[in-house]
Amino acid sequence: MDISTMPRSYGVTVPQWVFDELRATPDTLSTDEERMSLVHKLAARNPAEGSGGPFAALVVDTATGEIVSAGVNLVLASGLSAAHAEIVALSLAQTRIGGWDLGATGAPDRELVVNWRPCAQCYGAALWSGVKRLVVAGAGPELEQLTGFDEGPMREDWAEQFHGRGIEVVSDVLREQGTRGVRRLRPDGCRAGAHRLQRARHHLAEARSVTPAPRPHPTPGTSLPPTRAARR
Amino acid sequence: MDISTMPRSYGVTVPQWVFDELRATPDTLSTDEERMSLVHKLAARNPAEGSGGPFAALVVDTATGEIVSAGVNLVLASGLSAAHAEIVALSLAQTRIGGWDLGATGAPDRELVVNWRPCAQCYGAALWSGVKRLVVAGAGPELEQLTGFDEGPMREDWAEQFHGRGIEVVSDVLREQGTRGVRRLRPDGCRAGAHRLQRARHHLAEARSVTPAPRPHPTPGTSLPPTRAARR
Repeated sequence: MDISTMPRSYGVTVPQWVFDELRATPDTLSTDEERMSLVHKLAARNPAEGSGGPFAALVVDTATGEIVSAGVNLVLASGLSAAHAEIVALSLAQTRIGGWDLGATGAPDRELVVNWRPCAQCYGAALWSGVKRLVVAGAGPELEQLTGFDEGPMREDWAEQFHGRGIEVVSDVLREQGTRGVRRLRPDGCRAGAHRLQRARHHLAEARSVTPAPRPHPTPGTSLPPTRAARR
Repeated sequence: MDISTMPRSYGVTVPQWVFDELRATPDTLSTDEERMSLVHKLAARNPAEGSGGPFAALVVDTATGEIVSAGVNLVLASGLSAAHAEIVALSLAQTRIGGWDLGATGAPDRELVVNWRPCAQCYGAALWSGVKRLVVAGAGPELEQLTGFDEGPMREDWAEQFHGRGIEVVSDVLREQGTRGVRRLRPDGCRAGAHRLQRARHHLAEARSVTPAPRPHPTPGTSLPPTRAARR
């Protein structure tokens, strides 16, 4: 075959505004709340910057509070559906330390701080990254109901599966701030996901031969395309 | 904070040998078997090249059989735990078409062909990519038993969840070839995963206060480091 048109590489670059926010941040963030507060700030700004959905993530040295990397959802900016905030932050951290295992022998314990429970993809990404701790503002269907985003099929025992692999899960850190930030986006920032959820519901309904659930956010006007992957 | 040491981008580059293999491939691959045969060939060569685990994936135009992109597991080569074959292939395809949605309106139907059921991470990645079809050589715990790799917690209804989102799942395409290729790697290519699975079992056992299961491949000598993420 003609290989001249075959793609040979891909990449993701974090926009400058993220570093502008980081410059104004203390060198270390001692508490879960301080870490989550920065995550919420980045997540809230991201849709307005047009990079992707309202999600951000940090990799932090658990003991010292040093920020190893900061990611936001860059699906729109990068054109890659996998560029969710968690994968961006984890990949940047691994680039910084020069290896794929954030939990390698002798390394300090590192954690992933993110503004909601990871989706189906990032759930697995967190599992394989080597982080020892996952800190989320919230978990459960609340965000899906607010945003209309489909987070994918998760197991009921998702947190236990993390624990079983040596990863501590801490939830409900500045939870109210997280849902408040997302609620502010409706319907402009989130109708995208509503379309997507509607499409998923329609498919599921067809598969089960039942009536689809009503469309969650029928209001016109959107600042994000009607996308599946733009959610993070 | 000092942002001068903060990582700003990450990327993945496919090694030249993959394109050497592709050069010797017909322009189009009409059948599932032809597509899977190429996947098996790339997957089998990958550990010997030192790029990562024995996994490969293609994005293919379902109707024409044109190969849009080809990926292999590049966890070791890239130093990124998310660089599993599926994410590499999907990201390359999205880079080629210039957008994150392989299933955008008006686009031809595209499919992901991979040599085993995706792990927990790539399961989600496939869901958000826009592919309309997933073709695998096999599914189920057989590969985990052979390789010792932990594929992560999957739901029992994983295939139904794909169907429910409009993605057809085709299994058992050149299945025997797939497991044969992986079986050949034991213990040299796969002890890595055995360590990982052993670690996971140990954690699970600790969590449940029961005795860990015996280590699956105790033979010394390995060509891959004892890694979680090198699995794909």
